Amino acid sequence: MAFNCEVLAIGSELLLGQVVDTNSSWIGARLAEAGIDCYYQAKVGDNQARIVAAVRQGLDRADAVICCGGLGPTQDDITREALAEVMGVPLRRDAALEAGLRERFKGREVPETNYRQADVPEGARPITALTGTAPGLVCPVGAKVVYAVPGVPAEMREMVGGPVVDDLVGRSGEKATVRSRFLRVWGMPESKVAEVVAPRVTALEGTATTIAFLANISEGVRVRITTRATGPEAGALALAALDAEEAELRALLGGFVGGVDDEGLEVVVGRLLQRSGLRLGLAESLTGGMVAARLTSVPGASRWFTGAVVSYSDAVKRDRLGVGPGPVVSEDAARRMAAGALEALGADIALSLTGVAGPELQDGQPVGTVYFGLATKDGPEPEVHHALLSGGNRQLVRERAATQGLDLVRRLLTERLS
Amino acid sequence: MAFNCEVLAIGSELLLGQVVDTNSSWIGARLAEAGIDCYYQAKVGDNQARIVAAVRQGLDRADAVICCGGLGPTQDDITREALAEVMGVPLRRDAALEAGLRERFKGREVPETNYRQADVPEGARPITALTGTAPGLVCPVGAKVVYAVPGVPAEMREMVGGPVVDDLVGRSGEKATVRSRFLRVWGMPESKVAEVVAPRVTALEGTATTIAFLANISEGVRVRITTRATGPEAGALALAALDAEEAELRALLGGFVGGVDDEGLEVVVGRLLQRSGLRLGLAESLTGGMVAARLTSVPGASRWFTGAVVSYSDAVKRDRLGVGPGPVVSEDAARRMAAGALEALGADIALSLTGVAGPELQDGQPVGTVYFGLATKDGPEPEVHHALLSGGNRQLVRERAATQGLDLVRRLLTERLS
Repeated sequence: MAFNCEVLAIGSELLLGQVVDTNSSWIGARLAEAGIDCYYQAKVGDNQARIVAAVRQGLDRADAVICCGGLGPTQDDITREALAEVMGVPLRRDAALEAGLRERFKGREVPETNYRQADVPEGARPITALTGTAPGLVCPVGAKVVYAVPGVPAEMREMVGGPVVDDLVGRSGEKATVRSRFLRVWGMPESKVAEVVAPRVTALEGTATTIAFLANISEGVRVRITTRATGPEAGALALAALDAEEAELRALLGGFVGGVDDEGLEVVVGRLLQRSGLRLGLAESLTGGMVAARLTSVPGASRWFTGAVVSYSDAVKRDRLGVGPGPVVSEDAARRMAAGALEALGADIALSLTGVAGPELQDGQPVGTVYFGLATKDGPEPEVHHALLSGGNRQLVRERAATQGLDLVRRLLTERLS
Repeated sequence: MAFNCEVLAIGSELLLGQVVDTNSSWIGARLAEAGIDCYYQAKVGDNQARIVAAVRQGLDRADAVICCGGLGPTQDDITREALAEVMGVPLRRDAALEAGLRERFKGREVPETNYRQADVPEGARPITALTGTAPGLVCPVGAKVVYAVPGVPAEMREMVGGPVVDDLVGRSGEKATVRSRFLRVWGMPESKVAEVVAPRVTALEGTATTIAFLANISEGVRVRITTRATGPEAGALALAALDAEEAELRALLGGFVGGVDDEGLEVVVGRLLQRSGLRLGLAESLTGGMVAARLTSVPGASRWFTGAVVSYSDAVKRDRLGVGPGPVVSEDAARRMAAGALEALGADIALSLTGVAGPELQDGQPVGTVYFGLATKDGPEPEVHHALLSGGNRQLVRERAATQGLDLVRRLLTERLS
């Protein structure tokens, strides 16, 4: 069996269903990127005997185990004690970690219980916490290893995404640093993305860099670049390889690339608006405020977003946006809504969305029918786009419409800025 | 060790982090409600040898194992084969399940691969699927038992929440049906809820019914009623006990009870609006469309929701809603926004929200400051409520403001209808 690593999430709240364990999934994805097999993940409560048994079972099957959680300062945080038991060694207070704790408390008295976070099983090596106070642990057990990382997602990600994956890749015999970056592609189906990117996949054959595709119906396609580098400058080399490949892919995919990594379309649109010095307004019908809510989730949105008219009733469409008589799910209604929003909200660009979210047909049009209007202050007649978002329920149709609408704004702004 | 049950989620996509396993958490919560201990939960990929090993390890530790996933019709769905191996028996095609499949395909030819869903390990008992096509399995292994349920959440919930939990409670020696219901309480802190409900906790001592509290900062407090009943009428008896206790709690908590179980405030507000024959309009500033988006997620919202003005810029507040000069995070602005929305949106009731979501102060007011306005068509001056939602980031402040605003509408409507 190839070198492999298991994940053990620790915390009674996970078993009771009070908190969903998303950490293991995140770690699983990072292990897959790094080419390390993961055949087994488990959850166990805050009970020392059961944690010890679970770690031992993991070590029977796998080369490494990542334990997540139970490193806090309270009495039910017992991962340190459990790992000392697995290693058959006592805990020793680490002087450097103790000094770090005192520094973090800046003169205030360190609660006695917090000093437990400076305890390290004899023979284990601490991983310093960059954020948070909980240090991680690297615990050798014979030729195998157990890592302990905090359960707080941000702290866990920092440790697993850096030192833990690096150490694992080294132990797997590869001695490499593995790093990934995601380019988010909007408005192009996965099969088309694969076709466009095919020359790069061929060009990369035999190199340390690979490309993979991940598709999600409401989040678009993500193109993952993964690269491996070695030597003392491995980190810098990996970063340079990612930058170089990102540039190659952007050259092929052009305006279809939106954000990088976890960056949503709303962040990208906000940045483009800020750069253009333009302000956006919205007229939302089927999305009922979802586009506005996404945009205003970005701090500082008031600099580039004026507001929205959520025109759910026909009277609001007519009286506030100047939509005429006739069907409200139509090209004409979308055009008038966009023009009306531009005017009513004092915006430079306006996006309108009208359509059928379901569950029932409207004006004889099927669920998933959407018209988007795009109006610009100095521009000609508003342009209208049409889509049929099939195969989803009400919420999915609305989410996809919101995403597609934001992508239309993104493309318009990208064109203007280029 | 008390009777206990483990959970094994099956699917390579779970290990790769492409799908987060929420099923185990849901099952863990149901087991806790039923008083069945769960010390261990695991995830394993679509590999027969590893599934078999994981189930056997579970049976070594526990009295029962619930396997979730791998019951579909495709070749990587191998839970049936794995459980037959654990039991040491062959698979047999079940005639009734086969007939059920043919019926479900209504004359169209059943794809050969789908017939695999009619295969049952010899000596196991199928659990008929109410929704979906994947039947579940009850597989006795010596004195212990393994259940298999589908990975599709809705299908899994139906089976685990009914027949599986009932069977487990029976095996635990209790011979009882355990059922729970959640009452969602809004606008009252957990400590106060506990105080108000204390007489019922006392009254229920020694009975088959218990009460528990679960709090979540953006979802309010949930009061859980759990009851046990026995005998051939156990289901009906449990339901009657839940109804009776719900009535007692509603008498104590009065208008603070919103929905039941997973029912969000938007569903409750929609139902109250429908019953009152009134239509709601919104003026949203800091929540930027979140309240509108929640309300329009409810099918049929157009019957009771006219629309919203998302007045993110001061010009929109002034020109569209008639807000005067002066600070826009103020009692006066909230009042004018509500009155303006009533007028602009042709609504019978209007809610306004203005405040500081952060990350920065505004007009010298701290992050978390919110003013809510409530205007009614036939009513007096709009009323204004003030809140300081402290200790959260931008998104949390917005979510809590949206929830609190919806709760104000709920209370107004409840009063009017009473």
